[in-house]
Amino acid sequence: MRENNVRNLLLTMYTPYMTTSNLIRHITGFTGSNAIVVLSLDDKHYFFTDPRYDIQAEKELNGGLFRIHTCVAFTKIFEYMKESGIDRIHYISDITPYTMVEGVAQGYCIPTDGSDILGDLIECDKQEVYVYREKFSGDSYKLKIARVLRELLKNNQEFKEDSVFLITSVENISWLLNIRDADDHNTVPAVLGKVLLFGDASLTVFIEGDFIDSSLDHELHSDPDINFVNKEDFNQQLNNSLFYDVTTIMCTDVRDKGQHINDPITRLRAIKSHVEIANFIHIHTIDSFVLTDFLLNYINLGTYSEMSASEHLLSLRSAHKLFIGNSFVSISACNGSSASIHYHPTKGKDKKVDRGVYLLDSGGHYLGGTTDVTRTILVGQYDVSEHFKQHATRLLQGFIDMHTCVFPCGTSGKVLDVLSRAPLWRLEYNYPHGTGHGIGNYLNVHEGPCGFSSSTELQANMVLTIEPGFYCSGKYGIRMENVVFVKECGNGWLKFEPLTWVPIDLRMFHLNTLSKEQLLWLSWYTREVLKRNSKLGLSGNAIQVLLSDLETISLII
Amino acid sequence: MRENNVRNLLLTMYTPYMTTSNLIRHITGFTGSNAIVVLSLDDKHYFFTDPRYDIQAEKELNGGLFRIHTCVAFTKIFEYMKESGIDRIHYISDITPYTMVEGVAQGYCIPTDGSDILGDLIECDKQEVYVYREKFSGDSYKLKIARVLRELLKNNQEFKEDSVFLITSVENISWLLNIRDADDHNTVPAVLGKVLLFGDASLTVFIEGDFIDSSLDHELHSDPDINFVNKEDFNQQLNNSLFYDVTTIMCTDVRDKGQHINDPITRLRAIKSHVEIANFIHIHTIDSFVLTDFLLNYINLGTYSEMSASEHLLSLRSAHKLFIGNSFVSISACNGSSASIHYHPTKGKDKKVDRGVYLLDSGGHYLGGTTDVTRTILVGQYDVSEHFKQHATRLLQGFIDMHTCVFPCGTSGKVLDVLSRAPLWRLEYNYPHGTGHGIGNYLNVHEGPCGFSSSTELQANMVLTIEPGFYCSGKYGIRMENVVFVKECGNGWLKFEPLTWVPIDLRMFHLNTLSKEQLLWLSWYTREVLKRNSKLGLSGNAIQVLLSDLETISLII
Repeated sequence: MRENNVRNLLLTMYTPYMTTSNLIRHITGFTGSNAIVVLSLDDKHYFFTDPRYDIQAEKELNGGLFRIHTCVAFTKIFEYMKESGIDRIHYISDITPYTMVEGVAQGYCIPTDGSDILGDLIECDKQEVYVYREKFSGDSYKLKIARVLRELLKNNQEFKEDSVFLITSVENISWLLNIRDADDHNTVPAVLGKVLLFGDASLTVFIEGDFIDSSLDHELHSDPDINFVNKEDFNQQLNNSLFYDVTTIMCTDVRDKGQHINDPITRLRAIKSHVEIANFIHIHTIDSFVLTDFLLNYINLGTYSEMSASEHLLSLRSAHKLFIGNSFVSISACNGSSASIHYHPTKGKDKKVDRGVYLLDSGGHYLGGTTDVTRTILVGQYDVSEHFKQHATRLLQGFIDMHTCVFPCGTSGKVLDVLSRAPLWRLEYNYPHGTGHGIGNYLNVHEGPCGFSSSTELQANMVLTIEPGFYCSGKYGIRMENVVFVKECGNGWLKFEPLTWVPIDLRMFHLNTLSKEQLLWLSWYTREVLKRNSKLGLSGNAIQVLLSDLETISLII
Repeated sequence: MRENNVRNLLLTMYTPYMTTSNLIRHITGFTGSNAIVVLSLDDKHYFFTDPRYDIQAEKELNGGLFRIHTCVAFTKIFEYMKESGIDRIHYISDITPYTMVEGVAQGYCIPTDGSDILGDLIECDKQEVYVYREKFSGDSYKLKIARVLRELLKNNQEFKEDSVFLITSVENISWLLNIRDADDHNTVPAVLGKVLLFGDASLTVFIEGDFIDSSLDHELHSDPDINFVNKEDFNQQLNNSLFYDVTTIMCTDVRDKGQHINDPITRLRAIKSHVEIANFIHIHTIDSFVLTDFLLNYINLGTYSEMSASEHLLSLRSAHKLFIGNSFVSISACNGSSASIHYHPTKGKDKKVDRGVYLLDSGGHYLGGTTDVTRTILVGQYDVSEHFKQHATRLLQGFIDMHTCVFPCGTSGKVLDVLSRAPLWRLEYNYPHGTGHGIGNYLNVHEGPCGFSSSTELQANMVLTIEPGFYCSGKYGIRMENVVFVKECGNGWLKFEPLTWVPIDLRMFHLNTLSKEQLLWLSWYTREVLKRNSKLGLSGNAIQVLLSDLETISLII
């Protein structure tokens, strides 16, 4: 730093592709997912994180080296630094999102080349890239390019046929070109790279890696409209009058003449094609069977720890030929652990799963789609408290009310959100997370822009989760999560259709306080779970459990 | 116009106080509530209205004199005029809201003095003003002024103790000074005028009228901190560096050095004081009794027309000493008429109220508060269709679900809105109006900023209506409306408490499809209606009806 005349250097958690990097973890030891560091030659270094991680940061960082600050908005950091008497800060253009420094007074933030100071610490590992076949991705890249261009021209008067659009969102690039990272352990298998889309439907593409499947990538590489180049050549082409989406660009991508427009891929990606929906139905059927089998036949054996349970589940999922890997790190949590929303067991320190409340939030990437399911069940001969039952029942009501709602076109998830919350609100409880998120096709398990916290209008064939929760600190947590897709009723009305068919443990609820409509849905859902999973060979024991559930409900209706 | 070198003159529906004027009605014959006219010497005049009024405008206007255009946003008018080859438009500063011409290119809109052209057509009638006593208004004007100043200083860094705030909202002025228009027939009894509020808590006040009650206005007039002046003197004082709320100012109020800040009174006014809530409870009890009596003892006599029914209701309300007048023109509508959301019967053309669906939406201004209630009932021996019953039942569910919801502080009406709509949405029906609005204290029956279409956070002691509806064109309309206030549950949670206690006609619903919680609320509400109205002397017959309703519900629970 001294050599480069840098006294204060801003570091982020981002790679040059706005994915998460290990830079800050490497330098500070911090393992959380949100932080900014300012390395300083003057005094201690500065460490900023959000309030979720205040205790963790104190624990993991060396207080002799870092001043730790928690703040909700990272845009306040520069104000804070100014007030602390720091007269200027250097940042590394490559790993600093444009929106982070955009509003800061000129001359205060100074761009610098990170490789001089950090060397290969900010370089990304080379990926092995492969083509995600059309029968899984839904549409050809040719068709997708044409649709994206049409949207660009339709939505932006300024965007003409001789304009150039810089695509920097790696999920959007992977969707557009039907390519994925070949690493099965990558829960977000997006391909790192950047793309220039020209008004004549030709592309210039830089990919941080090599293609591994020569037969399938042949079409891409032999397409005269696609020009694969290396990083340097790509960056040289940026000297155009570019259009880009500022929300996903790094400072290094910004050219003087650039202009912001929304990347239309983000919305297009969220609306699944008919092929994608058919695939989602198929792989959710498979995944639901694995989970149903696991929850009804295995978890009660009393032989699992939190960790071994999720490992066994992974092995059951892996048996299917379309399965690729976990879509996120499973939350396998018993009793007290289940009250921590983001709990992950660690080997050796995990609990036994023998008696009590067990919460399992897991999902898989498959060729053809991604799953994300949560069930909370009672393990062993365990009687829950009245407090538990009351809250669980309200939770179930909110879960059902969202599943059964019908809504006019033009309605956003945000408008519907309260339907899942209102029953728990009656007990003066509000779960401290969203009601549900969009899901990608073997890409992000959390995919924008649709979801129940979003003002994006819901459209037919969007896929999202419904996952209300209740958490009683130190004692237990309950969450139920299904994946659903938006379906047309006709005449401008929409509804949700479940993709997940996994049993709900009825022992947790006061079923007699449900409304008749709620009971009818529960009965229908349980019947469907039974029907669909029986077809795939569910064991006789498990079938007995579901039949007995159906009888329980029918006695109340 | 020619003398003043004006070729095209813009006229609005506004008085200089942003209340509704008769100017356009006078000139064009149009009786709707939303229009703009451009008088032109070149050709026909231009008439703009919104799509609700397209047919009415064609009917009421002389097509030989006016070109009629319907548009949703009046801000598009200037673009349209430019495209029509009109090179400039004069407007009358006094009656043109600042926001209407704010964004138009300089030089295109030219201010002119209306009195030269229109003479006294744009003058307002002088009002008779009286003091709305503190026992009805809740707080003294002194206290209110102090609170408003505190809010101004707290919310706006730029507003200092030597700043001046121009108040132009006539409702806010009336609230601040505890004064009202003495005309009992004025449904919005706001006092026309303008006020300058100085940082030292002194006021300069111009009122378009005279005080009529010398004993009560003594305090205001003898207060050395309040300087009553005439219009000319007031306007001369505008040469300050003013702060104002642009949403309620006319072009004539804007001074070069002015600066926009939100008028804090709008929010303060919506949060009723404890005295106001006590008064609201009192006058709603009175009003509910009048309506209950009317609906259970009179309307079924078969002797009414739509018009005479609302006249009789007014006479019943008038019998109470606190009653002042209707808070809006009653909607008294039988069968087909009830399907028109804004139907008002006219003498001679109104229907008989003898057999069928009858919708009554009415309200009163009282010393101490304002009411607004809608009930739909069956008159005569009338059996409704299955279609009616299904929709009415869903409507009732939405009505109850909103009444019974509990929500965390910070929740807006907009977030809750779907609770009233979701049951009807299941039948793929959405009512084409808001779910409810704020209510003023003997001021506007529709009062901002709270309501179920608003993102204003609901706070304890806000008063609002819950009024879902269902309309089947040409056949019938159903609407149910109660006034409620927001009440604290403690621990950061809020709920609604009804102010209206008027019976619900149970014959309209499939009660057995309600949830147990919904039935329990209906039973509780009916019992409260019985208890509260019996105390005030409800007739034996009416009591029998309510007792039988209670029995009907209890047989289902």
